[in-house]
Amino acid sequence: MADRWRVGGGLNGGYQLSMIGNAIRAALPDHPDPVAVSAYYISPAVAGPATVVVRPQRVGGRTATVAAELQQDSDVRLSVLATYGDLDAFPSDVRTTAEPVDLPPRDQCVPNTLAPDEIKEMAPFTQRFEMLFHPDEVGWAVGKPSGRGQISAWFRLADEREPDPLSLLMAVDALPPVTFDLGMMGWAPTVELTAHVRAKPAPGWLRLRHRTRNIAGGFFEEDCEVWDSADRLVAQSRQLALLPR
Amino acid sequence: MADRWRVGGGLNGGYQLSMIGNAIRAALPDHPDPVAVSAYYISPAVAGPATVVVRPQRVGGRTATVAAELQQDSDVRLSVLATYGDLDAFPSDVRTTAEPVDLPPRDQCVPNTLAPDEIKEMAPFTQRFEMLFHPDEVGWAVGKPSGRGQISAWFRLADEREPDPLSLLMAVDALPPVTFDLGMMGWAPTVELTAHVRAKPAPGWLRLRHRTRNIAGGFFEEDCEVWDSADRLVAQSRQLALLPR
Repeated sequence: MADRWRVGGGLNGGYQLSMIGNAIRAALPDHPDPVAVSAYYISPAVAGPATVVVRPQRVGGRTATVAAELQQDSDVRLSVLATYGDLDAFPSDVRTTAEPVDLPPRDQCVPNTLAPDEIKEMAPFTQRFEMLFHPDEVGWAVGKPSGRGQISAWFRLADEREPDPLSLLMAVDALPPVTFDLGMMGWAPTVELTAHVRAKPAPGWLRLRHRTRNIAGGFFEEDCEVWDSADRLVAQSRQLALLPR
Repeated sequence: MADRWRVGGGLNGGYQLSMIGNAIRAALPDHPDPVAVSAYYISPAVAGPATVVVRPQRVGGRTATVAAELQQDSDVRLSVLATYGDLDAFPSDVRTTAEPVDLPPRDQCVPNTLAPDEIKEMAPFTQRFEMLFHPDEVGWAVGKPSGRGQISAWFRLADEREPDPLSLLMAVDALPPVTFDLGMMGWAPTVELTAHVRAKPAPGWLRLRHRTRNIAGGFFEEDCEVWDSADRLVAQSRQLALLPR
């Protein structure tokens, strides 16, 4: 695993998730797409070789469920349960009452390329993406967090590769912790993250929104929605994370 | 496991979750409370003996994370990853922007004891609880679903035992599928359910709300909030389930 995905002392959680998601895909030829993935972060991953162990638990017609671990030497970094399937083979019916993430035009949003060098140094993984933040939800960058607990942004991979179901696993943990918007700067270690991939994303920019509604016991939940260029809710995730110190 | 927890052909998912949650608690003396539990439903559980295998993955000071399986004979019913801790030992700070579940007084709600006998026969587990449904969200019981995708209810165990962190794992999957409120009667098998227990519930009735916002690909997500008598959001869960046929 590569140092360019570092954030603080470890490697970005979404990067690890897409790594293990890729290995699971390789183990399930008839079930190529993640449908539900639950990841528990056991120890901080570091740059260097990693092994993924996949143990199928149920391989059916419509879906397959596996347990998997991302290991470095003998240490487990990430422990995962996942259900995969073929998104193209699922029924095409859609009934969504959720509202698409509402963002100003991209030229009116704030690009992550403006981040100060110390942020780029502390979290080089952020340079793997283009993120254009909602101007009302990026005040934290200048010491003026909105206090609402919401961060939205346009998103695409820096190499302009089109989004696919696996890259959505990266997208759901790519934005800064939503606690930034509450004035709590500092990284928030993920305890658990579950992502549901609900459809294959259409080509083009994604829109992401992180929200938290309940801070308690030194933890907070971070809900993420990912909408594609066709106004489809393609992924939903929730993580439980530790509050920044 | 007991037949009185049956729903259709299998046993209630929340019942299985609390069973495995109990076994995990027994394996972690210093970490008595579930904090995050992710369950993947591998095969339908039936009445009869069951074994729980618990494999610790990281036992730290604040939390411990395990993998666990609920097995019957050689069949895995439920595969779980879970992080446990001591809720009493966590910081007491709370910042919640979520609004408590809004229910009319209990004497104006619709009790599940009114359910027709065929429902009681098909889902005897519902008789383990007292559920008092919001009158505006129980129209499905008389063929008039609201169509909003929301079901709220007062909730307590039928034996009037006070709620505890483990019983919250049962509560998050106790109400009828939220798809009833969309006119889709019939049981909705859970693929994956993740629950976060955010605080120890105060004594007294709980308030539950199930919601869905995105039906796609033959699946729907069901979010559940559990509020206690002290107006505290004590549990949040989301499950991915199969649409009823």
